[in-house]
Amino acid sequence: MKIEHLISQIHQKKSFLCVGLDTDLEKVPKHLLKEEDPIFAFNKAVIDATHSYCVAYKPNIAFYEAYGLQGWKSLERTMAYLNEKHPEIFTIADAKRGDIGNTSTRYAKAFFEALNFDSITIAPYMGKDSVEPFLVFEDKHTILLALTSNQGAFDFQTKKIGGQELYKEVLETSKDYKNAERLMYVVGATKATYLKEIREIVPNSFLLVPGVGAQGGSLQEVCRYGMTKDVGLLVNSSRGILYASTGADFAQAAAEQAKKIQVEMEVELGKTRK
Amino acid sequence: MKIEHLISQIHQKKSFLCVGLDTDLEKVPKHLLKEEDPIFAFNKAVIDATHSYCVAYKPNIAFYEAYGLQGWKSLERTMAYLNEKHPEIFTIADAKRGDIGNTSTRYAKAFFEALNFDSITIAPYMGKDSVEPFLVFEDKHTILLALTSNQGAFDFQTKKIGGQELYKEVLETSKDYKNAERLMYVVGATKATYLKEIREIVPNSFLLVPGVGAQGGSLQEVCRYGMTKDVGLLVNSSRGILYASTGADFAQAAAEQAKKIQVEMEVELGKTRK
Repeated sequence: MKIEHLISQIHQKKSFLCVGLDTDLEKVPKHLLKEEDPIFAFNKAVIDATHSYCVAYKPNIAFYEAYGLQGWKSLERTMAYLNEKHPEIFTIADAKRGDIGNTSTRYAKAFFEALNFDSITIAPYMGKDSVEPFLVFEDKHTILLALTSNQGAFDFQTKKIGGQELYKEVLETSKDYKNAERLMYVVGATKATYLKEIREIVPNSFLLVPGVGAQGGSLQEVCRYGMTKDVGLLVNSSRGILYASTGADFAQAAAEQAKKIQVEMEVELGKTRK
Repeated sequence: MKIEHLISQIHQKKSFLCVGLDTDLEKVPKHLLKEEDPIFAFNKAVIDATHSYCVAYKPNIAFYEAYGLQGWKSLERTMAYLNEKHPEIFTIADAKRGDIGNTSTRYAKAFFEALNFDSITIAPYMGKDSVEPFLVFEDKHTILLALTSNQGAFDFQTKKIGGQELYKEVLETSKDYKNAERLMYVVGATKATYLKEIREIVPNSFLLVPGVGAQGGSLQEVCRYGMTKDVGLLVNSSRGILYASTGADFAQAAAEQAKKIQVEMEVELGKTRK
């Protein structure tokens, strides 16, 4: 997907919400377990109910791999459904991959070609030649981990390397990668005030922001420090939407949660347009 | 697998060779493409031919994911075959995963439980709470990326963070993780002289060393600086063994290459026993 399409979708829906599809059979409503493919049945119902309020879906690949062959099949069906019914929606493989060149190319083919994701999350530890194979793909986007929302982010990411924190070094260094215009970054919302400094390094890049809601970040703070003239933000919510209800009304409850966030986002989008 | 079993297997086979199963349908002998599952057919033939000369197999997960559902099926069959026919052999999921806690747990279940791997490679960028979920599993091993063998290793890994290089900080920090005795580390052989300093930080941990052979490292150098009293090394070779011949004699050629390395390893093991 071209970035302009994502931006125009954001303005049209007045939303920059990404719904994380962390589908867990222990948490989906019990009546779905009778379905032939409960994971897909759950995802389809959530997508049908929420697609007007969000611009992106982000399957968390671990949740599918945990179910082996059946999980991979559910992932394929979910992506086929999204690509067929909602080709306007941006898709993110939350995979956090990254390996030496020829191996990264394999992962890129798996997610960009076979599954037709628009983007993938990537860990930066192995450097340039582990990231660039993903950047080769036109109209595909590579979302590099910069500052994550977990406690372990303080182990290495915020430590100073040379003159600045490692996550800033990652941002800075990656700007010189070939096809760097296809990069986006993961920035945890639990550290919204960091966004100001991040925007000094990557003023225009899209940021994928997990951790609003369940993980404790504030949408208003994220927008205050992170929003650009082209919005430049995708804010993710997973559990708060998926498991808003564990009863038969789960899809409706998911829609209500998504709509609630969309309404807040509409307010924020209004602010920037002033 | 308990670490003692790995060590005793090394002494028995006089080998610390790991064969990387980077199985690529564009490189396997043409006649195998007629098989119902060419990836498994190739792996099985390679395993049958080489298992006397090696102590570990390391499927590179990207190569399987690139083939989608079929690839995952081939991976499952390969692991089922290894677990049934060669339970004494150490298995490594070369997956380079790592995510927030509950997601890492999912990956751990996928690889340690569903596929029954003995170990998995993990990227350290997200810190402690992304690694510890893997360390919970008894008799399973987590192989943390420290210093990789690719050019991009110089982007961040060798840069100084505080007083020392990032890869040393990773080694040092991870020693305090809960169940740290289940950690091993990836150290690229193209930087064998670094091993001396690495051994000062992790004197006893097993190191998985890629990059001997095709990627240019020297086995003798690796052993000189990296071997411990319990050997402490797994040296990987992938392409040099798998694609030693692309004809009908591929398995025999693979065995010859593996044996050649095993013989060199026997010499090195002899040196330490003096």
